Amino acid sequence: MTKISTHTIELSTQGHTHIVDITPDVQRLVAESGLKEGHVLIFVPGSTGGLTTIEYEPGLLRDLPEFLEEIIPSGRRYHHDDTWHDGNGYAHLRAALIQPDLMVPFVGGKLTLGTWQQIIFIDFDNRPRHRRLVVQIWGQ
Amino acid sequence: MTKISTHTIELSTQGHTHIVDITPDVQRLVAESGLKEGHVLIFVPGSTGGLTTIEYEPGLLRDLPEFLEEIIPSGRRYHHDDTWHDGNGYAHLRAALIQPDLMVPFVGGKLTLGTWQQIIFIDFDNRPRHRRLVVQIWGQ
Amino acid sequence: MTKISTHTIELSTQGHTHIVDITPDVQRLVAESGLKEGHVLIFVPGSTGGLTTIEYEPGLLRDLPEFLEEIIPSGRRYHHDDTWHDGNGYAHLRAALIQPDLMVPFVGGKLTLGTWQQIIFIDFDNRPRHRRLVVQIWGQ
Repeated sequence: MTKISTHTIELSTQGHTHIVDITPDVQRLVAESGLKEGHVLIFVPGSTGGLTTIEYEPGLLRDLPEFLEEIIPSGRRYHHDDTWHDGNGYAHLRAALIQPDLMVPFVGGKLTLGTWQQIIFIDFDNRPRHRRLVVQIWGQ
Repeated sequence: MTKISTHTIELSTQGHTHIVDITPDVQRLVAESGLKEGHVLIFVPGSTGGLTTIEYEPGLLRDLPEFLEEIIPSGRRYHHDDTWHDGNGYAHLRAALIQPDLMVPFVGGKLTLGTWQQIIFIDFDNRPRHRRLVVQIWGQ
Repeated sequence: MTKISTHTIELSTQGHTHIVDITPDVQRLVAESGLKEGHVLIFVPGSTGGLTTIEYEPGLLRDLPEFLEEIIPSGRRYHHDDTWHDGNGYAHLRAALIQPDLMVPFVGGKLTLGTWQQIIFIDFDNRPRHRRLVVQIWGQ
């Protein structure tokens, strides 16, 4: 029989495309659920953060922000900034691109990630933020 | 006990990276399902549309198309256009990038979106389209 | 009553942003499950591959790699390459962008894809790889 449970992960970030490895938190919630087979949905409530996976190593932690800076520069003026004057138009665009949802299956109570693959939350906003991510676990 | 139901949202768009806020439609379907805790999968059947979330305000409604125009210009000739001669190669690339699926959790019968976060469908095609999105609700 | 089952798809790829149409494999697993209504989660365990949908035709099979080459060039030196010296920093960035998860609903035992829409796995690594994708089917 399948079951659902919904949890939160709380984070303090530095903003400015700060990348946080949330794999241990997600794996711990899956383990605590006692479910063996299913999937976990992680979701960012808010429009200046995103989720993806990456090999969490110092080189890529510089490469990914540099790539995003190249295609969506932080120093440019965006129309969004004319609306709110908070200077984070680029953060909204990066979040729309990287997106707020990620699904990861688990089998035998363990996430089916690769050995060198971590789940990351990226805070694109232009200031430190307190974040609360939604983690929903489905399984049997 | 968990339940599934599948619905559709019908839309008429102007094409040309037209952005439509579908949050009220999705929230209404979740409310009508009577389910309290679960998630909703929204899916675009077709290869020239995509889904993401954004703060739906006039500035970003200009910024997002301008960004996509910069990295995937509509005026360029793509190999796809040599195949079909319909001139929408850029629409296919934008759709492959933004992707056709989005998952949003709900708790207490409400989507766990941020206050300034809306679910958007983007029609990348180069002409007005009638679209039928799939909305699948899972929950208890 | 809802049921879950987890499967794998095994692939040999050429690497170098090789695009593989996995739609027949996914559809076959859904058909074999006997489930009528639900969704399938496809997931790449590993940080140099990604999933999306596209019209699988020769033009776009050239356009998509050319687009990725433009925004994340393979010939550039990335910080990741300073860490591991395996020269595939660009593959990691492309995978973080395209992402490892894709959800597709099915109804009446059939994926709700558009007529010209295929599910693709893209191998971004810089060498041929053997890949094992996770396919999890949920439904009733």
